[in-house]
Amino acid sequence: MLIVVMKPRVMVKDMGAVLKKIEDMGYQPHISRSGERNLIGIIGEGNEEKIKDSLSVLEGVEQIVPLSQPFKLASREFHPEDSTINLGPVVIGGEEVVVMAGPCAVESREQLLEAAEAVKEAGAKILRGGAFKPRTSPYSFQGLGEKGLEYLAEARERTGLLIVTEVMSTGDITLVARYADIMQVGARNMQNYALLQELGKARHPILLKRGMMSSVEELLMSAEYILSNGNPRVILCERGIRTFEKMTRNTLDISAVPLIKNLCHLPMIVDPSHATGKWELVAPVSKAAVAAGADGLIIEVHSHPEEALSDGPQSLKPEVFKKLMEELKKVAAAVGRKL
Amino acid sequence: MLIVVMKPRVMVKDMGAVLKKIEDMGYQPHISRSGERNLIGIIGEGNEEKIKDSLSVLEGVEQIVPLSQPFKLASREFHPEDSTINLGPVVIGGEEVVVMAGPCAVESREQLLEAAEAVKEAGAKILRGGAFKPRTSPYSFQGLGEKGLEYLAEARERTGLLIVTEVMSTGDITLVARYADIMQVGARNMQNYALLQELGKARHPILLKRGMMSSVEELLMSAEYILSNGNPRVILCERGIRTFEKMTRNTLDISAVPLIKNLCHLPMIVDPSHATGKWELVAPVSKAAVAAGADGLIIEVHSHPEEALSDGPQSLKPEVFKKLMEELKKVAAAVGRKL
Amino acid sequence: MLIVVMKPRVMVKDMGAVLKKIEDMGYQPHISRSGERNLIGIIGEGNEEKIKDSLSVLEGVEQIVPLSQPFKLASREFHPEDSTINLGPVVIGGEEVVVMAGPCAVESREQLLEAAEAVKEAGAKILRGGAFKPRTSPYSFQGLGEKGLEYLAEARERTGLLIVTEVMSTGDITLVARYADIMQVGARNMQNYALLQELGKARHPILLKRGMMSSVEELLMSAEYILSNGNPRVILCERGIRTFEKMTRNTLDISAVPLIKNLCHLPMIVDPSHATGKWELVAPVSKAAVAAGADGLIIEVHSHPEEALSDGPQSLKPEVFKKLMEELKKVAAAVGRKL
Amino acid sequence: MLIVVMKPRVMVKDMGAVLKKIEDMGYQPHISRSGERNLIGIIGEGNEEKIKDSLSVLEGVEQIVPLSQPFKLASREFHPEDSTINLGPVVIGGEEVVVMAGPCAVESREQLLEAAEAVKEAGAKILRGGAFKPRTSPYSFQGLGEKGLEYLAEARERTGLLIVTEVMSTGDITLVARYADIMQVGARNMQNYALLQELGKARHPILLKRGMMSSVEELLMSAEYILSNGNPRVILCERGIRTFEKMTRNTLDISAVPLIKNLCHLPMIVDPSHATGKWELVAPVSKAAVAAGADGLIIEVHSHPEEALSDGPQSLKPEVFKKLMEELKKVAAAVGRKL
Repeated sequence: MLIVVMKPRVMVKDMGAVLKKIEDMGYQPHISRSGERNLIGIIGEGNEEKIKDSLSVLEGVEQIVPLSQPFKLASREFHPEDSTINLGPVVIGGEEVVVMAGPCAVESREQLLEAAEAVKEAGAKILRGGAFKPRTSPYSFQGLGEKGLEYLAEARERTGLLIVTEVMSTGDITLVARYADIMQVGARNMQNYALLQELGKARHPILLKRGMMSSVEELLMSAEYILSNGNPRVILCERGIRTFEKMTRNTLDISAVPLIKNLCHLPMIVDPSHATGKWELVAPVSKAAVAAGADGLIIEVHSHPEEALSDGPQSLKPEVFKKLMEELKKVAAAVGRKL
Repeated sequence: MLIVVMKPRVMVKDMGAVLKKIEDMGYQPHISRSGERNLIGIIGEGNEEKIKDSLSVLEGVEQIVPLSQPFKLASREFHPEDSTINLGPVVIGGEEVVVMAGPCAVESREQLLEAAEAVKEAGAKILRGGAFKPRTSPYSFQGLGEKGLEYLAEARERTGLLIVTEVMSTGDITLVARYADIMQVGARNMQNYALLQELGKARHPILLKRGMMSSVEELLMSAEYILSNGNPRVILCERGIRTFEKMTRNTLDISAVPLIKNLCHLPMIVDPSHATGKWELVAPVSKAAVAAGADGLIIEVHSHPEEALSDGPQSLKPEVFKKLMEELKKVAAAVGRKL
Repeated sequence: MLIVVMKPRVMVKDMGAVLKKIEDMGYQPHISRSGERNLIGIIGEGNEEKIKDSLSVLEGVEQIVPLSQPFKLASREFHPEDSTINLGPVVIGGEEVVVMAGPCAVESREQLLEAAEAVKEAGAKILRGGAFKPRTSPYSFQGLGEKGLEYLAEARERTGLLIVTEVMSTGDITLVARYADIMQVGARNMQNYALLQELGKARHPILLKRGMMSSVEELLMSAEYILSNGNPRVILCERGIRTFEKMTRNTLDISAVPLIKNLCHLPMIVDPSHATGKWELVAPVSKAAVAAGADGLIIEVHSHPEEALSDGPQSLKPEVFKKLMEELKKVAAAVGRKL
Repeated sequence: MLIVVMKPRVMVKDMGAVLKKIEDMGYQPHISRSGERNLIGIIGEGNEEKIKDSLSVLEGVEQIVPLSQPFKLASREFHPEDSTINLGPVVIGGEEVVVMAGPCAVESREQLLEAAEAVKEAGAKILRGGAFKPRTSPYSFQGLGEKGLEYLAEARERTGLLIVTEVMSTGDITLVARYADIMQVGARNMQNYALLQELGKARHPILLKRGMMSSVEELLMSAEYILSNGNPRVILCERGIRTFEKMTRNTLDISAVPLIKNLCHLPMIVDPSHATGKWELVAPVSKAAVAAGADGLIIEVHSHPEEALSDGPQSLKPEVFKKLMEELKKVAAAVGRKL
């Protein structure tokens, strides 16, 4: 549903051309008048983007106003209740705030198992760790690949933690799916539509991170790519957007948490590690996220941050993480949640 | 303290020119070598910006790296303990989270008194309300001026609330100071240095709002203007920065709260109303701010938002505000604060 | 003129409340229907911002769409022909591209006179130089004040160049007006409304720089403050906006030049020095500005950039400036202008 | 090469830990002193990002300053002369400014052939047109796929124009390579590293568009992914970045043209259509790009913009494009280029 606002005192032939175009596209125009301007309502299901593009270039058209959100399956209008994602005993999007934690990258068997034991003991439910790493520089550590996935599987076996890990390419989906409980789409791939479409055909829940340059609407449209291809199990993640502020790695958009919870039924978590880039800010920002209504957190924990091959400066040591988990319990309780 | 990094294999005459320039400015250069590059350390107090500008244009200079923060009086290095601002029974920056609330603009005596009674009853300690309003359009309501200040004073007398109100121009300082307990510098005036300098000579505490596209460093430099002119009582306020996200009025930079608390000893509050621009996001974002360590909140409350001459859509109705105050108490307790 | 879009299937009482509110504000509502939604047109002159704020908080209102630009006197709709600003032999906004050049700050009599002679010889028509300097740090050079203005006047007398210089505070307007031919509002003061209002009562042309955090619409609204207070002689200046890109000081919004020339009748110039912050980018960016249709340029030139008290790294040496002026002549001719 | 700046008066054991870590990583530390601070230079080739991450978490480290650019093969330091890309008679990066033009998407055989004839006649050398389209919405037109590639090949045969078209996924490279002369990486895929790595193994020139929120450094690092995998033929493209300004689709970063030409030897073109999103701004911005030193332009041209399935509002009609080409010739000549 759109409204086409015509310029004041528009010529009859221009008005006619717009009406004809609307009918040619298979819609019915509804004309009304407001002062010197004609307004044309267009009703019916359809591709609003295309209608808008086609009409906005015609003579006499001043403005085209869409009346509905471009996302459908992701919207609360379509699905008013909260969606929850059930992974055996772990439920994401329910009463409990679910914490995912672990190292940025899987670097070695020992490193991963050590981190897994530590985050398990502190109360995390899901182990994070990258086997395929998107790095700005081709000369940086790119991840252990399948070896890393094997270590993740071993860590799951030992600790009972579920596994979330990133998939970067359509070619790797089958491989990653064999090991992961949740497949993650990283911020840089949020608009890699080929990847989203394939993940829409997968059976695993997808953790979709907001691109550092993406609007809330675009995040929901990317979720729509997965949902419309048949996979209803999407978890959204706010991880900071890019702004002019340089003292933090990104700027966490905390308002996006309640905003998205209002617009969309999917679970929504927050990544305070990538958002801030500084371990000393992770604790206060994690508490803020829970207080704002996040359904979970994904936090980088590394037993020896100074040895980390990636993201050491933003990783918590296990003892700091453990203390944070205790504090988060209180904040969760204060807003009627559990952790 | 700066380090000048010279280009690899720099010519002797270029090296000499840099050393001479440093000595001409009254500093002593300390040369060291790192591979193919010479490094020159410059030690001593002084105007780093000027040194940097003067040297960066010389031949052979690759990079100049400042080794210290440009703010002094505002820094924790200079003043390790938290500063508190005492206003009789109200202490800002102490254990208690202080809530300032009231309408965006003072519109009439009735409107203000009604709001004042309501926020007082809900537990606010300070009444906000603009008598001078900075508006994007010259055709918008510009505030009641002195009449508005008088209503604020009357509201204080009736309720015992303290008053915070904006001052927009050096010419208005004397007038506003006669009525206000705290004088506010709005986001658009954060770099109005003439105003900051005059307020540095005032005896009132100053509530300094971060500009919507100002960095944390710039906010602290603007505080430095006030502090260095003799007024040590500055309260900082994060109110959202401007980003590409359009669904909220601004993007609240929640990480700035713990970041600034780490760098600076001054009290730090948050304005969730301007940050989000949507009343339904004010409650979750307020809780997030308290969880992140804010020393206070400044919230827009209006008994009849639909009649408001400014910022109606982001104003809370009194009953919503009252409920929020109850919820905030729990969050404050969860992070070891009172409210 | 606005359109209020009601939610689908809105209740009669909500519809009634909106209509009543519109009538109470003195407007006549025009109802039309578009599918399941009612649309209400509001016609007449008035404060659209206020109407929007008042209605958007009512039940049942989905969206409010303004149909016209908020700026009036600055708009081409109001004033279809280009405005030109005549200063004796110099016309800004006409066929000729006018170049303003000189040092960032007036530092001494010698420095200024040297620069003035140099830019005059190269073909500049107007001398720039700050006597009052807005500096991020209170510890940086703040300008020579009235002494600086005197040197500017002397330079005018010697060279015949006109003078443009910044005014930072309402208290300084009378003083600056005594010396300047054009008074400049700096980027940080673009929304210092008290200053804009006073300059609206002045008789000098005003060079209004776009705030580094301001939209094109806000720039035009700030121009509107000056115009609506009675001063029709405003020159707009694009000088770069703040983005995430760190390799340049700001990001020059080159599209703003033709965009503003389309929307607005006022002359529009570009400041390549502040936009880039690097002297080696000033020449190519200046040519780009002229090619895009700018009516002028304001360029920093300093005989000894390494001695400059402000902005040395972005200042051109006289010989570089002279060469640039030659090159600009060709570009101006290529787009049908003179220089 | 990095410099580690230690905090003032650092403890011996912290200093020792840093030195040991540097040696453990296989580098030799060079200690020097600057006032109260120790500086440690690290020399040698290596992964600076990793060194930085590892050291920045150690006690006593204040700051780590990289002394060289993270890109190597893309840098002018490595390759001082301009790189040119030769495609038979067409040379990109030489004296001639090369214009690529055509519709956003290949929509039908007729549409494409009509556009191809028109842009050929106006003087374009390369035909653009998307067969695979990255669209924000899964419900928008996604491109004709291989059918579209066939039409492009037919248009090449008829007109002699070369073909540039987007490849969105590693799985499509072989297919696209069979038809295209230049393969394009779109802005949303600029950091799709799996794709970049595969294209590094291809023999076609790659047109790499800057992500809408990517820095210049990140663009050059993405080029580095292609170069370091063996493909030296990369063309960079500035197409606008995302800012707070809403009146244009993006903000063209015009300074990036000379900045990148200074830092990097690869050819650099500009896309004024996506940068502005408005056809009426395409002509002035194209002229600006040529004046700033761009090696080429990529412009959307559509015979019937109102019928376009994508990007109609920013497409030029053939006659407008033809006129622009005439004007561009003059601007190119004014800056010593041909077109």
